[in-house]
Amino acid sequence: ESVKKQEINDPSDPYAAEPTRHPALQINNLKPFNAEPPPSMLSDSYITPSAIFFKRNHLPVPKVDPESYRLEIEGLPGGVASLTLKELKSCFPKHTITATLQCAGNRRSEMNKVKQVKGLNWGIAAISNATWSGARLRDVLHYYGFGPEVASGAQHVQFEGLDKDVTGTPYGASIPLNKAMSDEGDVLLAYEMNGEDLPLDHGFPVRVVVPGVVGARNVKWLGKIVVSSEESKSHWQQNDYKGFSPGTDWDTVDFKSAPAIQELPIQSAITHPAEGTSVNLSDEEVTVKGYAWSGGGREVVRVDISIDGGNTWHVAKLRTSDDGVPPAVGRAWAWKLWEINIPLPQKPQELEIVCKAVDNSYNTQPDTVAPIWNLRGVLSNAWHRVKIKVSDDLSD
Amino acid sequence: ESVKKQEINDPSDPYAAEPTRHPALQINNLKPFNAEPPPSMLSDSYITPSAIFFKRNHLPVPKVDPESYRLEIEGLPGGVASLTLKELKSCFPKHTITATLQCAGNRRSEMNKVKQVKGLNWGIAAISNATWSGARLRDVLHYYGFGPEVASGAQHVQFEGLDKDVTGTPYGASIPLNKAMSDEGDVLLAYEMNGEDLPLDHGFPVRVVVPGVVGARNVKWLGKIVVSSEESKSHWQQNDYKGFSPGTDWDTVDFKSAPAIQELPIQSAITHPAEGTSVNLSDEEVTVKGYAWSGGGREVVRVDISIDGGNTWHVAKLRTSDDGVPPAVGRAWAWKLWEINIPLPQKPQELEIVCKAVDNSYNTQPDTVAPIWNLRGVLSNAWHRVKIKVSDDLSD
Ligand SMILES: [Mo]
Ligand SMILES: [Mo]
Repeated sequence: ESVKKQEINDPSDPYAAEPTRHPALQINNLKPFNAEPPPSMLSDSYITPSAIFFKRNHLPVPKVDPESYRLEIEGLPGGVASLTLKELKSCFPKHTITATLQCAGNRRSEMNKVKQVKGLNWGIAAISNATWSGARLRDVLHYYGFGPEVASGAQHVQFEGLDKDVTGTPYGASIPLNKAMSDEGDVLLAYEMNGEDLPLDHGFPVRVVVPGVVGARNVKWLGKIVVSSEESKSHWQQNDYKGFSPGTDWDTVDFKSAPAIQELPIQSAITHPAEGTSVNLSDEEVTVKGYAWSGGGREVVRVDISIDGGNTWHVAKLRTSDDGVPPAVGRAWAWKLWEINIPLPQKPQELEIVCKAVDNSYNTQPDTVAPIWNLRGVLSNAWHRVKIKVSDDLSD
Repeated sequence: ESVKKQEINDPSDPYAAEPTRHPALQINNLKPFNAEPPPSMLSDSYITPSAIFFKRNHLPVPKVDPESYRLEIEGLPGGVASLTLKELKSCFPKHTITATLQCAGNRRSEMNKVKQVKGLNWGIAAISNATWSGARLRDVLHYYGFGPEVASGAQHVQFEGLDKDVTGTPYGASIPLNKAMSDEGDVLLAYEMNGEDLPLDHGFPVRVVVPGVVGARNVKWLGKIVVSSEESKSHWQQNDYKGFSPGTDWDTVDFKSAPAIQELPIQSAITHPAEGTSVNLSDEEVTVKGYAWSGGGREVVRVDISIDGGNTWHVAKLRTSDDGVPPAVGRAWAWKLWEINIPLPQKPQELEIVCKAVDNSYNTQPDTVAPIWNLRGVLSNAWHRVKIKVSDDLSD
């Protein structure tokens, strides 16, 4: 039904020209389009196919003509620079990284169960992993005159999308200058996703990919870059995508008191089995699968799994990449998929399966949701818990 | 009594010449000397006085003659370099940072309460904050020929202390090359602590200070630096100071399966009031104080305090530094002290005060100790809990 609505072509609807989407996606909001894949599909492949990669749009998808597309750059010597797509592709070395993107609201639905929050009710699949190719942001900024003089006055790099609200205000965000310019930061002006032109939903023709950093700063349909002494003034940078104490409510919240989310904390979740699954005693073991990832290029070094609600723990087997090559130090941009077979107890019962990950700074996930609850429902990274039933073949 | 033992001068005792120590220190082990200050003294000053700065020695304190001292450097073009103390002080710019050091075993006693672990029974004060001055490690390595050719073959910088065990094996550790060489890594060959020559217990004449990284890699009485393709082979790098799953015991542990601890996770603890304190209902509020810190230069952005065991939370006031200047992005090497006055409930009862901190990657502390328990008792960073009594004046 939702899909049918898309097909009605009302020219006054800013969403009339949205791309068609994969039917497996679970739609959280149609306009703007927000959807996630079924968890089981997520852990089926180390690289998430673009069609089922989670989609988080804040505004209508803009139609951009690649021929007339210009990327503007402000805040460097010599005024405003303007770059064609062809120039971006041909004048700078093409760099490819594998990076996981995660929405700040991933797993928000678990916070909603504690107490209502404001935001789309994401499950555990507002996270996906892809390869991204493009020019390095630092190469482009150096080419246009970035140097010590600019560095001394600047602290942020702002991004503006070509997607706009009804008043003409574009989506916007910024990242710290040191992330943008670091040799090891791997920030890309990406024009390819999984070896093909960026799909419309993922920012065609150019998206900034900021690995290790919350999805919201990975601005799609990138129209403008501004090197600045200030953060982006956008709503999404200033008055959204920030974390607060569980005691802070909409009457008391002061958005200036918290930093904009950049790097995300350690995260993991169980993609298999699904909540409510029944397994048979005669199976003797249960296979548990999931993903784990941490922000800031911190590598996941261990995932602990429990089938007794967190009393005893087993260590899962991690899958680092398709080729098994470990990430460079400080540049673990991609998730790890994990898997483990755990012996079943010998009597019918309900099991609570739990996972928690550890990164190479030895940060770990908090046990429960309530103490990290926040009014926007972001940063939901408590232990993931899935209840299943072990039943006796005979008694079934 | 312990102090008296020190004064008996037995020349065959490798610990015969240890320095005298501040009487307020709580001694966890005498030989080698390991001691921490009383928690209340810890939060009395933003900069910890050197005399009460926690002391964690692995071996006897070596007596080093500053005149004949040489710092050797291996793994750079031109063979072994050798540097006098005078050269270190005069040939390289003097750089000063404020940095908190924390022992990997800080708060181990809380893990011991869950199940016995191996190690010194540290309380919450195996952490302290000081100013450190010295030459930047990167300046020294560049001076002796570090360049792209060395970088292409090296991945670690190893450190050897002049402190040795009975077989002559020195203390040793290593850090990743990118931390050592980063412009923003602030790794120092420190010869001053809090504006004076390093005290004997803190590495006189030279200690490497690796801000944001576990105390164990901040090698004292530094004798040798080796730029290498390999980590330090020392016991403390290879078979100690690593984290494991709670299910791993001494029969099953494989030290090769876990990375050496480098950056430490988010941490906080309550220094005031002490466990078991009684407060009067008529006081109307209770003042709670403590410290918070995170590894890797991640800034503490919030500390949440509860006096009802974690059901409701208040946000503490943070003290960033003596001068109030915020740290540079990614270089928050120093702790924050925090304080809050919380209204008391209106009936006599026992209160459980809890604290948890959040850093600017929005990592937070786990709720409970058991799920992060590990056989070495390191990385103990669950919520800190202190029980106090609220009593009625009249009923007392
Ligand atoms: Mo997001
Ligand atoms: Mo330590």
